[in-house]
Amino acid sequence: MFEQYDLTRKVSDEDYKQIQPDLAERFGRLQREARDLDLPVIIVADGWNLSGISTMLHQFVLALDPRLYAYHAASSPSREEEERPFLWRFWLRTPTAGRMAIFDRSWYSRMVAERVRPEDGGAPERSLREIVRFERHLTDAGAVVVKLFLHISRDEQARRIERIKKQPSAAFLIDGHEDVRLEHYDQYLPIFEEVIAKSDTPNAPWTVIEAHDRNFTVVRGMSAVVHALEHAIEERRSTVVPRYPAPLQPPSKKRLNLPDPATHSLSKDEYQEALKRYGERITELQYALYRERVPLIMVYEGWDAAGKGGAIMRLTRRLNPRICQVEPVGPPNEDESRHHYLWRFWRDLPRKGHVAVFDRSWYGRVLVERVEGFSSPAEVERAYGEINEFEEAVVDWGGVLVKFWLHIDRDEQLRRFIDREEDRERQWKITPEDWRNRSRWDIYAALVAEMLERTDTKAAPWMVISSNDKRYARVEGLQTIVERVEWALR
Amino acid sequence: MFEQYDLTRKVSDEDYKQIQPDLAERFGRLQREARDLDLPVIIVADGWNLSGISTMLHQFVLALDPRLYAYHAASSPSREEEERPFLWRFWLRTPTAGRMAIFDRSWYSRMVAERVRPEDGGAPERSLREIVRFERHLTDAGAVVVKLFLHISRDEQARRIERIKKQPSAAFLIDGHEDVRLEHYDQYLPIFEEVIAKSDTPNAPWTVIEAHDRNFTVVRGMSAVVHALEHAIEERRSTVVPRYPAPLQPPSKKRLNLPDPATHSLSKDEYQEALKRYGERITELQYALYRERVPLIMVYEGWDAAGKGGAIMRLTRRLNPRICQVEPVGPPNEDESRHHYLWRFWRDLPRKGHVAVFDRSWYGRVLVERVEGFSSPAEVERAYGEINEFEEAVVDWGGVLVKFWLHIDRDEQLRRFIDREEDRERQWKITPEDWRNRSRWDIYAALVAEMLERTDTKAAPWMVISSNDKRYARVEGLQTIVERVEWALR
Repeated sequence: MFEQYDLTRKVSDEDYKQIQPDLAERFGRLQREARDLDLPVIIVADGWNLSGISTMLHQFVLALDPRLYAYHAASSPSREEEERPFLWRFWLRTPTAGRMAIFDRSWYSRMVAERVRPEDGGAPERSLREIVRFERHLTDAGAVVVKLFLHISRDEQARRIERIKKQPSAAFLIDGHEDVRLEHYDQYLPIFEEVIAKSDTPNAPWTVIEAHDRNFTVVRGMSAVVHALEHAIEERRSTVVPRYPAPLQPPSKKRLNLPDPATHSLSKDEYQEALKRYGERITELQYALYRERVPLIMVYEGWDAAGKGGAIMRLTRRLNPRICQVEPVGPPNEDESRHHYLWRFWRDLPRKGHVAVFDRSWYGRVLVERVEGFSSPAEVERAYGEINEFEEAVVDWGGVLVKFWLHIDRDEQLRRFIDREEDRERQWKITPEDWRNRSRWDIYAALVAEMLERTDTKAAPWMVISSNDKRYARVEGLQTIVERVEWALR
Repeated sequence: MFEQYDLTRKVSDEDYKQIQPDLAERFGRLQREARDLDLPVIIVADGWNLSGISTMLHQFVLALDPRLYAYHAASSPSREEEERPFLWRFWLRTPTAGRMAIFDRSWYSRMVAERVRPEDGGAPERSLREIVRFERHLTDAGAVVVKLFLHISRDEQARRIERIKKQPSAAFLIDGHEDVRLEHYDQYLPIFEEVIAKSDTPNAPWTVIEAHDRNFTVVRGMSAVVHALEHAIEERRSTVVPRYPAPLQPPSKKRLNLPDPATHSLSKDEYQEALKRYGERITELQYALYRERVPLIMVYEGWDAAGKGGAIMRLTRRLNPRICQVEPVGPPNEDESRHHYLWRFWRDLPRKGHVAVFDRSWYGRVLVERVEGFSSPAEVERAYGEINEFEEAVVDWGGVLVKFWLHIDRDEQLRRFIDREEDRERQWKITPEDWRNRSRWDIYAALVAEMLERTDTKAAPWMVISSNDKRYARVEGLQTIVERVEWALR
């Protein structure tokens, strides 16, 4: 692939002075237009060592309003980052609506580094698949992704190393590993070719830039970004964003075909004994998870008042607070709502060996957000694919993912609502919204049925817990966790 | 000091069952009340190794709503954190209004560690002073700070080490350095005594807890927090928050006694030559700063249209974007406005060896926020002390802090406003707000005079730049930076 590029391409200083200021001005204007349209923009600049990435990006940022971009220079991952999935730190750096993120080297460099040195623990095929999904998740949600690869020949790289070694002030730019990288040039070449070919998707295409000449590099790079932005802005302007009312009728005829939530129960003695036994086992298992650096991710979903809080409490009181975090999931805040909806869940993934408990979760996207009309039918459809891919990424990373649906019937919910209203200490737990959701039980039931069916994957199966009897539900939940963790650590 | 504590204090299991549930319930209720009152709460739990801090905190969190607290377990600082001032990571973890932060070991442990091992580069006296200021900044802004120190004797610590070594599942709790810490017990003792005595302030007092008995520790700790919260909530409820209208008259008779901004100018040739000379020098100096790991913090303040943007552009185009970040300071966003107003500036401090350029800054607190009535007279008064202390901390950390006031006169501002309105490409730079600010020139002039006088400190002097002539101003600015950096690196 790389042979096809003509590395002698040049822009004379005179031409540069003619073209570049105009491009820069358009770039600045497009940035403001993207802001006005709430368009998130991601610029990825990757390439060979010493190919001039930061020189080019320097010209980019001079054209931009610094209020509207963040510049991310790659560095080796921090301990915090190492203990999360490969894409975690990049997810965290995705821009909010209307802003721009510039990556001076990116997930591609990192992935290629892992691929060439497999002792780093990388799984290249999987990483590439996850990268393609990552970019698709972002562009499907409206982001513009522009990817530039700066290409220079091995000889040119050698020349630049020699030149830079003679410049004392530029010593900052080199780290002493230049010669090693030069040695590996031929080894990296086919890998870059393959990675670029496989990740050159219609939604996030590559522009390979012949980077021997600085003027040409800047002009070509800026021009690629300017054209991508013009195209995206034009498209956005011509798109009518449909308003979708809340679906007041069940969107499908699916019936919630689940075990009768009232068939199981436990006596108080059975309960106490089992609670203690599984609780103590969980305390032991947490240390094993910690030692083996296996993260545990718990998802609690279920009807309002199904007992999520109580179940979580029985779990967390057995866990050391240093390694366990509870993430209660409510409506997104301002910042969260201006990111991809999965952003906050990526952010809240635990470190390796730690436990994250989600009290409600990303499934809000296909339940409450759908009923309230915050997500469109197309977004819901997409969410199903994205959720399954997200969970697969978590499991591939080594996570134990346990998803509970706490199931009660309609009568039991009513009893609990009324109990709560009577109890002064727990009145705050019941809100008008709970009653409103209850009045839409049938709609929710259809959505839940669809959700359980479409996201009950091999990587992340659902555990439906009959919860009319709280004792039974709590013990069943703890037992399930014990079994899943023991299996993972086997 | 520690001798005065009776380490035999105990709470029987029976008494514990009587008292603890009631405390836990009050604790939970107070947490919700604090949320309703927008009260930020900080709980610091520190103490001897194996004194049972996380056991106690575990009981705390079981009483709490996980939506409203964050748990911060101390760990050795990350690379990101090491390259910032000592308190940076703690500032970043301060809670927003209505939330609670629980520190399982804190800035005290860290400071004491540095004090005992001075080779860690700590400056203990300074750190203690900065800690006291840090806590005062938070409590002055309305936060509740509760500090608990868990005290056990050397013999008890030795017993616990033996016991824990025999428990395989608890191996998680120990890191292999227990015996070393035990050896240092007697060395640490007077240091803890001194640190506690010196940081036992009325706004953030210590509670030392005799921690030999687990029941007693939990009850005493919870009780200390519950009482502090009850007191703070009562006080908050009885405080009438005054509404303050914007001061439409100049609040002082101070006159802006500055050099005539129109006296200096440069010819185009002089300008081009000097711009190039200082620009190239800055490019060199950035590498020296990077090598010496000296952070450079630039503050650009000045009248609207005084040329801040242009001056910043002339600086940043000489800097590598990998080590330079521009922070444009506008009104705080939702998250920022629910923290201490200095929080976002702490957050945006650069890494060692990097450059942060603030386009407007924390001085907004005593200028625009004051005029718009967002900060009360008492807050402004406090801000002066806090700003000087913040800047002192930055300089003590090793930062080079350069503050510019770009000074133009009223006529020049009008000329520039009108020029901008005529220029289609720059129209977006001028807003109705700019005109509104202009109509309050005299008020601003008085506030600026006061600001320059009260914050022109030895650690961080103001550089007033005559800016009617843009060429002169830009060159003067660059020259100042060169001189300050050369002096710092001398």
